[in-house]
Amino acid sequence: MYDGIVQELVDELGRLPGIGPKSAQRIAFHILQTPSFDVSRLSELLREVRERVKFCEICGNVSEQETCVICRDPRRDRSLICVVEDAKDVAAIERTREFRGLYHVLGGAISPIAGIGPGELRIQELMSRLADGEVQEIILATNPNLEGEATATYLSRLLMALDITVSRLASGLPVGGDLEYADEVTLGRAFEGRRTL
Amino acid sequence: MYDGIVQELVDELGRLPGIGPKSAQRIAFHILQTPSFDVSRLSELLREVRERVKFCEICGNVSEQETCVICRDPRRDRSLICVVEDAKDVAAIERTREFRGLYHVLGGAISPIAGIGPGELRIQELMSRLADGEVQEIILATNPNLEGEATATYLSRLLMALDITVSRLASGLPVGGDLEYADEVTLGRAFEGRRTL
Repeated sequence: MYDGIVQELVDELGRLPGIGPKSAQRIAFHILQTPSFDVSRLSELLREVRERVKFCEICGNVSEQETCVICRDPRRDRSLICVVEDAKDVAAIERTREFRGLYHVLGGAISPIAGIGPGELRIQELMSRLADGEVQEIILATNPNLEGEATATYLSRLLMALDITVSRLASGLPVGGDLEYADEVTLGRAFEGRRTL
Repeated sequence: MYDGIVQELVDELGRLPGIGPKSAQRIAFHILQTPSFDVSRLSELLREVRERVKFCEICGNVSEQETCVICRDPRRDRSLICVVEDAKDVAAIERTREFRGLYHVLGGAISPIAGIGPGELRIQELMSRLADGEVQEIILATNPNLEGEATATYLSRLLMALDITVSRLASGLPVGGDLEYADEVTLGRAFEGRRTL
C-alpha cells in the first residue's frame, strides 16, 4: 500500500501503547511533513531516553542519575513513604502537590493471573529501607482494583510486625463526579469511608 | 516532575497529532521498559522515513523513488485518475481494492479560512497530466465537507472545458450505520442520491 519504509514506520508506531493503526498512519504522515530538524530531535530523544534513563536505586522511580530527584531532595520528609505500583503513579501524586514524603515503586501489583507474585515486586527493597527506623508511616497507594487491593493487603500484613503506621488512600466518589453514575462498589466504599462533619 | 530528558520526550511526543499529555506519558514509560533494540529501530525509522521518503513527481503520493508504486505499476488503468486531498486518502481507497486507475494528490483543499487557495494545491500538475488526452475520466474524491466540496466544484468547472468525464464519489448513509443517527445533511444526500432498484 505504501512504499516499504512508510509502512514499516506505521507498523512500528502501531506497537506503541494506545496507538491504533489509524493513529499510527496519521503520525507517520505527520512525520513526513514535519521539518527534518524536529524529526531528528524526536528520533534522538527516543534513543537517548532509552540509553540514559535508569531507575532510582532507592525508590525505583525513573532517574538519569543513580538516585532520583525526589530521593535527592533534602526538603522531602524522610519519615514518610508512599508505596505505588508504577513510576507513572509518582508523577500523578506529585502533580497534586499534597505529598512531601518519599516514594517506593513496586514495579507492578500481585496478580496470580499474570503470574506476578510478591517475589517479582520490589518488596524486599522496601523492607531494607525500613530497617534503620527513620520511617514512621507508610501510605499504600496501589490502585483501587483487585490486584492493587491484594498487594496492599499483603504489604499491610508484612508491615504489621514493625512499629510503623500503615495507611491506605481513601476510596470514594471522584470529585466532580455524579452519584447517579457511580458504580455500586465505589458507592459502597464512599458509604464505608463516610466522615462525620 | 521527571528528570529532564523523560519530560522532554513526553513533551515532544505530545506534539504528535492525536497524542495528548496522558498518552505521551504512557508512551514515554513504555519506551523506558522496551528492549533497547526495538527503540533503536523506531528511532532509526523516524529519521530514515523523513530522509528517504519523498513525494511522487507524477501524482504526489508518498514514494521512496521519483515515482510511486502506483504510477510505476503497468497494470493500472491510465485512462482514469482519482483526485484526492491527501496521500492518506490514497491508502484508504487502495484498501477497498475497488479502484484500478491512477491518483492525483492535491495536497489539501480550498479553504479561505486557512488561507489555502487553488494556487496552493497541485492543480497545475493535474492539468499537465491531462494534456496528452490519455485520461478519459476524473473521479473527484475530495472529502465530503465544506472545503472538499468547494474544491470539487472548482475542479469540475475547470475540467468542463476538456472532453473528460468528471464524477464525484457518492454521499449517503455509511454502510452498517443507523438511519436514526444520521445527520440531516447526510440523510438529505442519501435521498438525493437514491437509486431505483
